[in-house]
Amino acid sequence: MERLPGFRDFYPEPLPSRDAGWSFEARQYVFNKWRETARRYGFREYDGPPLESLELFTTKSGDEIVGQLYNFTDKGDRAVALRPEMTPTLVRMIAAHERNYKKPIKWFAIPQLFRYERQQKGRLREHFQFNADLIGEADPAADAELIALLIDTLRAFGLTEQDFVIRLSSRNAWHEFYEGRRQKAEARSDADHEYEFFQTIDKLERTPPEESEKKLATLGSSLADVNQFIESGKPTTELQSILDNLTARGLREYVKVDYHVIRGLAYYTGVVFEAFDKKAEFRAIAGGGRYDNLVKLISGGKVDLPALGFGMGDVVLLELLKARSLLPKFAAVVDVFVLIEDESLRDQSLKLIHDLRAAGNVVEYSLTPAKADKQFKRAQELRAAFTVKFESDLKARVKNLKTREENIVAIGEAVTLLKREL
Amino acid sequence: MERLPGFRDFYPEPLPSRDAGWSFEARQYVFNKWRETARRYGFREYDGPPLESLELFTTKSGDEIVGQLYNFTDKGDRAVALRPEMTPTLVRMIAAHERNYKKPIKWFAIPQLFRYERQQKGRLREHFQFNADLIGEADPAADAELIALLIDTLRAFGLTEQDFVIRLSSRNAWHEFYEGRRQKAEARSDADHEYEFFQTIDKLERTPPEESEKKLATLGSSLADVNQFIESGKPTTELQSILDNLTARGLREYVKVDYHVIRGLAYYTGVVFEAFDKKAEFRAIAGGGRYDNLVKLISGGKVDLPALGFGMGDVVLLELLKARSLLPKFAAVVDVFVLIEDESLRDQSLKLIHDLRAAGNVVEYSLTPAKADKQFKRAQELRAAFTVKFESDLKARVKNLKTREENIVAIGEAVTLLKREL
Repeated sequence: MERLPGFRDFYPEPLPSRDAGWSFEARQYVFNKWRETARRYGFREYDGPPLESLELFTTKSGDEIVGQLYNFTDKGDRAVALRPEMTPTLVRMIAAHERNYKKPIKWFAIPQLFRYERQQKGRLREHFQFNADLIGEADPAADAELIALLIDTLRAFGLTEQDFVIRLSSRNAWHEFYEGRRQKAEARSDADHEYEFFQTIDKLERTPPEESEKKLATLGSSLADVNQFIESGKPTTELQSILDNLTARGLREYVKVDYHVIRGLAYYTGVVFEAFDKKAEFRAIAGGGRYDNLVKLISGGKVDLPALGFGMGDVVLLELLKARSLLPKFAAVVDVFVLIEDESLRDQSLKLIHDLRAAGNVVEYSLTPAKADKQFKRAQELRAAFTVKFESDLKARVKNLKTREENIVAIGEAVTLLKREL
Repeated sequence: MERLPGFRDFYPEPLPSRDAGWSFEARQYVFNKWRETARRYGFREYDGPPLESLELFTTKSGDEIVGQLYNFTDKGDRAVALRPEMTPTLVRMIAAHERNYKKPIKWFAIPQLFRYERQQKGRLREHFQFNADLIGEADPAADAELIALLIDTLRAFGLTEQDFVIRLSSRNAWHEFYEGRRQKAEARSDADHEYEFFQTIDKLERTPPEESEKKLATLGSSLADVNQFIESGKPTTELQSILDNLTARGLREYVKVDYHVIRGLAYYTGVVFEAFDKKAEFRAIAGGGRYDNLVKLISGGKVDLPALGFGMGDVVLLELLKARSLLPKFAAVVDVFVLIEDESLRDQSLKLIHDLRAAGNVVEYSLTPAKADKQFKRAQELRAAFTVKFESDLKARVKNLKTREENIVAIGEAVTLLKREL
């Protein structure tokens, strides 16, 4: 029986065949870095259900999203879906209990997310995403804090300003641009078409110029006008204050204003940003921005809080880390391998194994009788730091497999010795 | 919008209202203990997809299980289901790549599992389960190693032999019992009805005696006969060797032979066991046993390996730990709160905040200008260990909020000082 296409198995270590999936140890390495960095920034971890009512997602993203969801009707006749993103769950949780929290609320999560995408070679239908959100603060200082977290998270993996850049932009800047042109232009270019304009900007880099030109003309602008605005790259007051804040932290070199970025989703309201590898070999590493209206929308008007956040998936990040040789070699850790060469000493050995484990060591041994050389070979395969074996009823031989140093000590001391040495 | 019934939100800390869900910090505490103990025993972590083909689960458990599953047809017309248990995924993964692994294979996982149960007050439809499995070793020494892990896992939470007991049993013992009676009995009591007999034993404690009596008569036995066997509690050779092994480790007092336990599922083949709280206030804390035929079944005969494992859910465990006051008070950790009393020093403060975080500290501050007393109050609410503020361009005042000790140091030294002190 096979696993479903687009899903991954996480074997403890990488397997010889690439097809065999991903390794749990690499995943855990990434999760731990995400956690450590978020915590240093004062973000606290939460989680919600991987299954939610379908309505939670359509309220936020419209009915078009259903085509990309793992959605179904459960045995209680509820329309439900596996979560394709975390923000709706976060906002639902915040809206239900926001009065328990001082603002700003700084939370993060590492959910597994699911999208049913038409099968493409190697395209995944699930991934893990680091989500950090800051709720209840409208000041650009909050945007700067979140972008600093994004930068430091990538730096925690050993990535430098040679490797990645944050492209910083703002829907407010484009709003002003659009409003300026609109007032001079024809009927169709009204406020209702602003999102249509945003989408045209979003697709600019992957649309033939003639097509963009035609579209922009109907929206009161022109390709030359738009390109000039992008090339100027002049920060708005809001963006400048974020840049100044990041400069103070020593992080200015990681960010550039780039008005190409506007983010596709309808709900972004202000500053938006994306992280890219500088060689542009991969898709975006992370993306986010302000969504000041979403809490109000999802809470049905009950709660109104400004908010912003970003998401960083594990797949592009892992590919980038591999390409830059930044994934450490993980060593399976076995601290002590207990050799049982004399079966009459098995019971004493089991006691010793138990004591060594209680002292915090990872301990392995042969469950069944085996030849001495076979046991020692196994200890080496497992890259054990030490072997221990009984020399007599009272003495144990402790061997450091790296230095080859050996000591014969009283049994009681072996545990103390290894506790100290490891 | 509400979360689905039977699902939990994990807020960072417990909320005043019980309804608000569970806390992420308690969940993480439990996961960390599970991980630490499993690692000391040399078990390595893996994971698989939460969504699998429906066939994987029906092959193992029969079509009856479908009524309890979150199953549906995906957009590619595949019959799929959210995993109700981890073993089928584990066995699928092992069967696909077993040649890469020396035996025995010792793996663990902490999957979230899903079951659509008829809605009962407070009954959950998802939970997390610690799964530890040992594959490729038929000797009872493997059973002892796994049971020792189960015991030490519960001990890691502070539970003692006053709190829990492992009820140890064996289908082999019941097999011998059944075979002995069968040979003397009527037609219906044949080998095909052995599983029917096992199920009768499994339900013995919750079935009226007359009913059990009637059923057992058709299977060549009697209630008196069965009860006498249970009361004798005489360990088989296999169980005795497990008890001796656990005795050597100093864990004998945690186990008792109890032939009431036989486990409901069809696929168990030998030793079976369950962990219970001694006051019998809760459902089983954990359960497991040997499933020597399952790898062969799920791999379609390709791979044949003896195996055994156990599962321990988070829900009963957390209830038990709460009832025994063994859940620690979790303190939100903020190492340093940086006070910004003079806005002209905000940029320098941002630099200091960044350096303190780079030195490994959890650092908080007010994102926007705020009165000095309000900032200090916030630092206290967050139970910060230290506050730091600029005294001048060059000096910082470091205050230990516990001891109230204050030091004025050069800015450069503040980071070194706090790195050392924390």
